[in-house]
Amino acid sequence: MIRWNEESPKTQQALLTRPAVMASKTIQNSVQQIIEEVTCEGDAALLKYAELYDKRSNPRLVVPQEEIDNSAQQLSLELKEAIEQAYANVKTFHQAQQPKDIKLTTSPGVECELKYQAIDAIGLYIPGGSAPLPSSVLMQGVCAQLSGAKTVVLCTPVNGDNCIAPAILYAAKLCGISKVVESGGAGAIAAMAIGTQSVPKVNKVFGPGNSYVTMAKQLLSQSQTGFAIDMPAGPSEVLIIADERANPEFIAADLLSQAEHGCDSQVILLCNSESVIEQTQRALDAQLQVLPRRDIAQAAMANSALILVDSIELAFEISAQYGPEHLILQLAEAAPYLPQVKNAGSVFVGDYTPESAGDYASGTNHVLPTYGYSKVYSSLNLLDFYRTYTVQSITPQGLKNLSRAILPLADAEGLDAHANAVKIRLEAMKND
Amino acid sequence: MIRWNEESPKTQQALLTRPAVMASKTIQNSVQQIIEEVTCEGDAALLKYAELYDKRSNPRLVVPQEEIDNSAQQLSLELKEAIEQAYANVKTFHQAQQPKDIKLTTSPGVECELKYQAIDAIGLYIPGGSAPLPSSVLMQGVCAQLSGAKTVVLCTPVNGDNCIAPAILYAAKLCGISKVVESGGAGAIAAMAIGTQSVPKVNKVFGPGNSYVTMAKQLLSQSQTGFAIDMPAGPSEVLIIADERANPEFIAADLLSQAEHGCDSQVILLCNSESVIEQTQRALDAQLQVLPRRDIAQAAMANSALILVDSIELAFEISAQYGPEHLILQLAEAAPYLPQVKNAGSVFVGDYTPESAGDYASGTNHVLPTYGYSKVYSSLNLLDFYRTYTVQSITPQGLKNLSRAILPLADAEGLDAHANAVKIRLEAMKND
Repeated sequence: MIRWNEESPKTQQALLTRPAVMASKTIQNSVQQIIEEVTCEGDAALLKYAELYDKRSNPRLVVPQEEIDNSAQQLSLELKEAIEQAYANVKTFHQAQQPKDIKLTTSPGVECELKYQAIDAIGLYIPGGSAPLPSSVLMQGVCAQLSGAKTVVLCTPVNGDNCIAPAILYAAKLCGISKVVESGGAGAIAAMAIGTQSVPKVNKVFGPGNSYVTMAKQLLSQSQTGFAIDMPAGPSEVLIIADERANPEFIAADLLSQAEHGCDSQVILLCNSESVIEQTQRALDAQLQVLPRRDIAQAAMANSALILVDSIELAFEISAQYGPEHLILQLAEAAPYLPQVKNAGSVFVGDYTPESAGDYASGTNHVLPTYGYSKVYSSLNLLDFYRTYTVQSITPQGLKNLSRAILPLADAEGLDAHANAVKIRLEAMKND
Repeated sequence: MIRWNEESPKTQQALLTRPAVMASKTIQNSVQQIIEEVTCEGDAALLKYAELYDKRSNPRLVVPQEEIDNSAQQLSLELKEAIEQAYANVKTFHQAQQPKDIKLTTSPGVECELKYQAIDAIGLYIPGGSAPLPSSVLMQGVCAQLSGAKTVVLCTPVNGDNCIAPAILYAAKLCGISKVVESGGAGAIAAMAIGTQSVPKVNKVFGPGNSYVTMAKQLLSQSQTGFAIDMPAGPSEVLIIADERANPEFIAADLLSQAEHGCDSQVILLCNSESVIEQTQRALDAQLQVLPRRDIAQAAMANSALILVDSIELAFEISAQYGPEHLILQLAEAAPYLPQVKNAGSVFVGDYTPESAGDYASGTNHVLPTYGYSKVYSSLNLLDFYRTYTVQSITPQGLKNLSRAILPLADAEGLDAHANAVKIRLEAMKND
């Protein structure tokens, strides 16, 4: 247990410092080579990586529509309904985020609009690994579907059975994804950014991944014109603020549900009760024993801290300084503190709101800024699949009025042709 | 004059390809050194650059509040009122963009919110050069002001008179900017991203600049945790779609008002009338003669093209493919075509809506995605000064309902601690 107020400012800062994530030069060079190969060889490069990295003897790229359509038949009824329930809630929450165009007259004869346009072509990346991640498909796929993007392509590597898990395909089917490609890693990201024979070139790629995927997203978003990515990536993290009447078993369960994500996950508890912290420590030890991913969770707990604070107000200040991806509030009365929430990705209020509810099914998006980026980046939302542009339409009299602003400003900025474009029109009006 | 349909697909593509903007390794190394110096030396580094690059004998950093307050006294009444009129229109248009929180029940007992938080600390950069750019201050400063950001700092280099132009200071005053710093280039960007004794550390930097500024924004947004930038930078550009009854003098004036920005500006005309194109060419020659920035405009015209198209529909397709920063429509009837607008930063409709109206005073923002980034990036708008986050609050019964989705999904994804966090609560409910 750490007592916040007994630590030096330096130690306090160190407690809130995340482990450095170094992008190695080796990874950068490998990814750069992959990007060049995909640019030159297209599909052939992707097929080569599938043989090389996924050990596939007869790799294919595009999943036939029939397999997507029939995916539900391979799911238990329980899992099928779980995917449908999660899909429905996520859709309800994101549907409410549909943007509305704005149109107004800023001054007489000057009409201005702010309009939303769905980004044309969207790429979704779903990492492979030990288990499929249908929830990641839903979180990104629902947004792409609601935006009405013309092209939505999903890339993911096959699993140990040499196929894409039916849970992934069924989630993709619900989201109306037009193309599923069996391709993973930096090659898949490059294919979506550049385009190959089988993979359409997209404008924006969403989704998590390992350090090669992250590097590919970063390099391609800098080098490919008109191509963007969702947000910077970092290890997952949770911060819990709890008071003296919080349930230590619940706190321990929530800390571990974050810690099991990966050895680099970070979990922090800020609590004003010594006794709750001690009980949480005991509950952690007990719950850890029976956890299948115990080794991972234990490693993550080593980057983590249970901190005693003098007041809940101070806990909110520390949280704002840290900027957690997930912020869980287990407080007798959370409502009065909600206006103090700052720099959090997603907030979980009350004893019966575990992080896993938001990870899967409450309706909020589980793609969140992490590693301190919640100070400036948004939680993934429907607007990330749109862009805005403006339209203006001015009457002759409107332009005459505006000329009193335009002409002196163009003159001050030394831009005569800017002034000319107005003067020539004022002249034409006189002659009308 | 280029006849679109007589060109090969390859030439057509070449016509729409922007000149490559290469970030040189030399610039990257210089900027990297500047970032290191600002990190280690703080203000001292900024003062050193002011002596070195701006040739100042007694450089200072922070402009005294009194100079900002008295700036209007040094302006002509005409320019003062021009700044005020532009400020009012830009404010009106952006005020209408104030975001609204969303709150809904996604399923019984599950309440979800999408909330907006103003980004805490904003940095604005205004480049120096031959003339001051008060309009750039307004476009960024109004948004920062409307968002209610706690800290807004503006960095700009002094001009030839060894001071910041009063037009810049007055625009800053109207926007309620809390601190104006006499510092330019990559050093100023580094100071805002890292923080020095005089310059507060900010979360997001907005504003244009030369290749050093652009490189500093890029490098720092990758290396500084919790720091972001507005959008990728590129040379300015306009695409005009005109029909047979468009006014060639107006077209020429608009093309030149873009071309005078810089030698790397690109201007394109798509027109279905040979005669209008010929008359535009003549008007261009005549108008160029009397332009003070003739050399720049002439150089820019060399990257540019007047293209004859078979139909206005085709012109809109070409425009969507190019993705222009500015799109001007000089058409007898523009309204039926507006739904075909795609991938434009800002659209100017009608004979009396020159680009310079939007640059200065219509109310729309003149900070726009360029270089093809309008396929995926938004025009600068008020939401760029906010971030969103979510909040969820679930009742015991709500969690019980959700558990039918959470438990099978956590099981499918092999995340037992995620399931545990729910199971432990379901158990607790039974015991209640």
